[in-house]
Amino acid sequence: MAANNLDTQYALSNTTYYAIIVAGGSGSRMQSALPKQFLLLNGKPVLMYTVEAFYKSNSRPSIIIVLPKDYHQYWLELCKDHDFRIPHHLVNGGDTRFQSVKNGLALIDNPDAVIAVHDAVRPLTQVTAIDNAFTYAQQHGNAIVAVKSRDSIRQLKNGISAALIRNEIYLVQTPQTFQSGLLRRAYQQPYRDDFTDDASVVECLGININIIEGSYTNLKITFPEDIAIAEMLLSNQQ
Amino acid sequence: MAANNLDTQYALSNTTYYAIIVAGGSGSRMQSALPKQFLLLNGKPVLMYTVEAFYKSNSRPSIIIVLPKDYHQYWLELCKDHDFRIPHHLVNGGDTRFQSVKNGLALIDNPDAVIAVHDAVRPLTQVTAIDNAFTYAQQHGNAIVAVKSRDSIRQLKNGISAALIRNEIYLVQTPQTFQSGLLRRAYQQPYRDDFTDDASVVECLGININIIEGSYTNLKITFPEDIAIAEMLLSNQQ
Repeated sequence: MAANNLDTQYALSNTTYYAIIVAGGSGSRMQSALPKQFLLLNGKPVLMYTVEAFYKSNSRPSIIIVLPKDYHQYWLELCKDHDFRIPHHLVNGGDTRFQSVKNGLALIDNPDAVIAVHDAVRPLTQVTAIDNAFTYAQQHGNAIVAVKSRDSIRQLKNGISAALIRNEIYLVQTPQTFQSGLLRRAYQQPYRDDFTDDASVVECLGININIIEGSYTNLKITFPEDIAIAEMLLSNQQ
Repeated sequence: MAANNLDTQYALSNTTYYAIIVAGGSGSRMQSALPKQFLLLNGKPVLMYTVEAFYKSNSRPSIIIVLPKDYHQYWLELCKDHDFRIPHHLVNGGDTRFQSVKNGLALIDNPDAVIAVHDAVRPLTQVTAIDNAFTYAQQHGNAIVAVKSRDSIRQLKNGISAALIRNEIYLVQTPQTFQSGLLRRAYQQPYRDDFTDDASVVECLGININIIEGSYTNLKITFPEDIAIAEMLLSNQQ
């Protein structure tokens, strides 16, 4: 079976589409030693659902998983145990999400590439969202998946809160998808604390970020109860 | 059993705390003719959970339910069927949420009242959040329950999106709790389209709105899948 796992370390081909799936979490918020991407959804690790979503898309991107080095062996064993054979490349995570994305980017040298960066802990992303993001970014430079806020929104600054116009506010998800040159240029900037996602890194170049409509079910596994919610949403999808 | 239902139309006493529970929804977003506050959570209507949360709080507010007139009889029948005996006052809903809150307010003439306005479709609000909101508003004029955004946030204006500082952004929930005079003065203003919640109405007076920490589980029943999520969260609470 070792050969099978080695197979997954295939050379990146000349495909146009790439997915960098970033699994940086240490799991500290989950009251669990296990990082969230390995938690089981209906008996299968979260990360496998995430990879499958990209694999099932029409874009069929080359898949790069960025994972803390300490967990590479564990992941390979999970792949063996679950007979998980979707080809992917495994890359070491960095100390920050920013560095992790950089490590993934270093593998891609196709100048025409269109690259989706995605949270490993978003296992329920719809295939249509992935394909729309690739298509839109290929044409317009970038596309990030987001949903309108269902709640009223306030901004709290120096102890004073102010209502924002709800219709103008989007909750940003992933995938966040970019033309290769743009993303590469963005990640050459020095790290800043307000880089909370890839869009903010690219925006720092002075580029307008394009929002495309996502889905409220594109859940990010953040808290323990999210696993049960994800299982419920999965059973609704089937 | 009719007498029992009439009992719930008790005279509002001289208590300090009041809860106006606003159930305006027509249910159009639920792919269901039934307004969301009547959907069943583990066999019991959503609105009954909401009322119970206030009834179980230490603040023990007088409860005013604002409901479209067409649904009053239906609600009274539900109360009979479910042997629901928590005392409450029933008020006609208005054409807007703004008018519905006004109709509720019209019942309260205690100048020392502290009034929580709450979405009927938030059945899982924790008792501690209710008590904290009453206490804080009594001391400081107002308190609204909100949670920090878990997602990166963008503001889209005239086709240009811009990242906001995530740490400054709060997703507003209910209860939103106010000293009586303040809320009454706010609701004497003419209606505006950007009044998306009570806090925005009060803020329009030039009053600073105080945010107090809520819970991510204080779910607003908005989409059909929210019922299953709420049932799951309920079973976690037990």
